Amino acid sequence: MNIGILGSGIVGQTLGSGLVTNGHKVMLGSRDAASTNAIKWAETNDAQHGTFSEAAAFADVLFNCTMGAFSLEAIKLAGEGNFRNKILIDVANPIDFSRGMPPRLTIGNDNSLGEEIQKLLPETKVVKALNTINYELMVNPGQLNNGHIDLFICGNDEAAKITVTELLVKEFAWKRECIVDLGEIKHARSTESMLLFLISLTMKYGTFKNGIKIHRC
Amino acid sequence: MNIGILGSGIVGQTLGSGLVTNGHKVMLGSRDAASTNAIKWAETNDAQHGTFSEAAAFADVLFNCTMGAFSLEAIKLAGEGNFRNKILIDVANPIDFSRGMPPRLTIGNDNSLGEEIQKLLPETKVVKALNTINYELMVNPGQLNNGHIDLFICGNDEAAKITVTELLVKEFAWKRECIVDLGEIKHARSTESMLLFLISLTMKYGTFKNGIKIHRC
Repeated sequence: MNIGILGSGIVGQTLGSGLVTNGHKVMLGSRDAASTNAIKWAETNDAQHGTFSEAAAFADVLFNCTMGAFSLEAIKLAGEGNFRNKILIDVANPIDFSRGMPPRLTIGNDNSLGEEIQKLLPETKVVKALNTINYELMVNPGQLNNGHIDLFICGNDEAAKITVTELLVKEFAWKRECIVDLGEIKHARSTESMLLFLISLTMKYGTFKNGIKIHRC
Repeated sequence: MNIGILGSGIVGQTLGSGLVTNGHKVMLGSRDAASTNAIKWAETNDAQHGTFSEAAAFADVLFNCTMGAFSLEAIKLAGEGNFRNKILIDVANPIDFSRGMPPRLTIGNDNSLGEEIQKLLPETKVVKALNTINYELMVNPGQLNNGHIDLFICGNDEAAKITVTELLVKEFAWKRECIVDLGEIKHARSTESMLLFLISLTMKYGTFKNGIKIHRC
């Protein structure tokens, strides 16, 4: 599968490396095709790098790993047409740390970044996923509670969510029973706003590696 | 201990009944002293009822169990002076269901109801607690995962948080190691916004009885 990753930071690099290891062709997309990060990553991983537009055009499936405050601009730079009929896994969070800790959301409450991306790309199957978990755990959830931690996904296209679930299970060893489909993309409000809570936990415990297990009766 | 509860709905009634059972004197406060709910509850539980003001004046420790959108008004009706030097355990969430599901927060992101109450009552020790859990679980957490679910508290007064922790452990059988002090009252932003997520879970599973266990490494 050809996979395009928007964003050449540590999240995009980690997901990309995991996918290359599993035999996929991966292109890391940056605003600037001469991104030092992306060039080094591509050399190390025997993979490709390019502009946002090149990565989107190359891909069958895309990951949005840009900074949340910049994601909509990144998608516009990539060209909306390059996303048509594809699955876009939105990993970003619209978090703003500029006013101190705890941070705030730039989009939230009765809206979400996931929804805004879906509005911008009506012919794309946007699936919100992996945004509630640290990048090291994204590709290795077994580090926590023997992998018995929950991952929350949402999106409007049922088939796309099944595809993403299979990808998470197969590529990154998520337990199928721990992938919780919350419903339509509007539930991205829930998982994005959970970042406020997860950052409170990080401030308390000094680790980003927190995971949630839901119990119910 | 004399305990005053603001709000005579099911949350206030449930906490009140638990505290009466354990030998405390409890007064349930309502906007209207002739509240049918409160009168019936007081008769059934051999306890007291009164106005918000009477309940606040009566109490050594208070619980705010009013609807979040109404909490600040309820406290003003109770008279700010009646809260001076007391602990107020804020159980409310500023949730607005009027625009459909999922709901929205009337206060959120870079502010919270807990913080607004602390600002209104600067001489009161406000501790946010129990707002992330269904009322039946508040007084009986053992129903879920043998009681191994986490409860998140926050507030500016360290001694008050210790008192509240002891109360939760002793009165409602919360496990001490599951009570997570997130820090200052500003972390109420985290636990109140978590309601968006908890309501998504309720919409999915059809039960309000959801609990969270955090794992970390």
